[in-house]
Amino acid sequence: MAIRLYDLAGADPKLRFSPYCWRAKFALAHKSLAVETIPWRFTEKDAIASSGQERVPVLVDGEKTVADSWAIACYLEDAYPDRPSLFGSAAARAPTRFLNSWADTVLNPGIIRFVLADIFRVIDPKDRDYFRTTREQRFGTTIEAFVAEREKHLPAFRQSLTPLRTTLAAQPYLAGERPAYGQLPVAVSTFALLEPDDPIAAWHERMLDAFDGMGRRALAA
Amino acid sequence: MAIRLYDLAGADPKLRFSPYCWRAKFALAHKSLAVETIPWRFTEKDAIASSGQERVPVLVDGEKTVADSWAIACYLEDAYPDRPSLFGSAAARAPTRFLNSWADTVLNPGIIRFVLADIFRVIDPKDRDYFRTTREQRFGTTIEAFVAEREKHLPAFRQSLTPLRTTLAAQPYLAGERPAYGQLPVAVSTFALLEPDDPIAAWHERMLDAFDGMGRRALAA
Repeated sequence: MAIRLYDLAGADPKLRFSPYCWRAKFALAHKSLAVETIPWRFTEKDAIASSGQERVPVLVDGEKTVADSWAIACYLEDAYPDRPSLFGSAAARAPTRFLNSWADTVLNPGIIRFVLADIFRVIDPKDRDYFRTTREQRFGTTIEAFVAEREKHLPAFRQSLTPLRTTLAAQPYLAGERPAYGQLPVAVSTFALLEPDDPIAAWHERMLDAFDGMGRRALAA
Repeated sequence: MAIRLYDLAGADPKLRFSPYCWRAKFALAHKSLAVETIPWRFTEKDAIASSGQERVPVLVDGEKTVADSWAIACYLEDAYPDRPSLFGSAAARAPTRFLNSWADTVLNPGIIRFVLADIFRVIDPKDRDYFRTTREQRFGTTIEAFVAEREKHLPAFRQSLTPLRTTLAAQPYLAGERPAYGQLPVAVSTFALLEPDDPIAAWHERMLDAFDGMGRRALAA
């Protein structure tokens, strides 16, 4: 039985916009493991109850259920050691964890300010009340007010990407010469997060092309 | 002839407080390479002119001169492949570069706000005019005014360390189970940068103990 992945989807089930789910899909692609993705909406908590928590990605591999994108990456690396290493080597896992933590705590929370209203527009209608309530509680204001001043926050956001920018000015992928454990930013918004000549923008294009254009095809969906 | 390292020193030549020079000393210790450190002051530009730039660390290994802590790490890794790997593996170099970029652009610039006046107090008297002029130009205010409100900036600084904190809550060293290419924060100030129960504080203690307490002995000097 193929590996299954519960994958955050919009009203259009082909729209998959969670950067955490993309990490899991890149990890599976890197290991050439077939996967059946199951479109999942925010309010479908029951469908993933066996994972013991309420968020995706959730990976089901036979008897094994794994939640959390980093835990999924580590599970795949350990369960499929004969496949290409996700991190490049055992020793690379530890510094990659730092990169993962940075993306969790700086990159993705930073992006949310710019795309929250765009996400709200594309989610399934049945998720709207849940999404509005939880996000407005989290950010202490309405979705509309949260993004209204996003232009003002853009310089600080771009500044916060400095470590990513300097790294990608020196090497084409975070893992070196080839893509490995991937970080694909949210791309459901047409808001210009990056200057066109930013090395991060060129890297983002490379990541969309990686693994036979898996990310780019999803955007075209 | 032993490897030589130009190492930033204070009025007391035993006081060595540059985090960039510490990276080079940790790298040399990790590879068990003997080094003669040469105390260097900010205004001794002539002594390192052969490096083609004006900052330390500068490493001299026979005919080879290397400036910049990351370039020094890469040089040592490539020139001494029979010694323990600085990064743990070839594949780990790329994600470690991200960690290095983060320390260069977030950690060290963040710390400066809290320790600039302390550094000014311990540098060699001949460096004082140079240090005051260049730093006041860089920060657009006097040294005293720059640090006067440091308490106010402490919450944001601690917040900026979140990726470091979450990583070190999960593994004892940035390189995993053992220290490798090190990041030792500036420790010339008694200002409490971290809460005592912060995982970063415990890691800092481990790093001071690493390599037979090399860092801790320097602080006692």
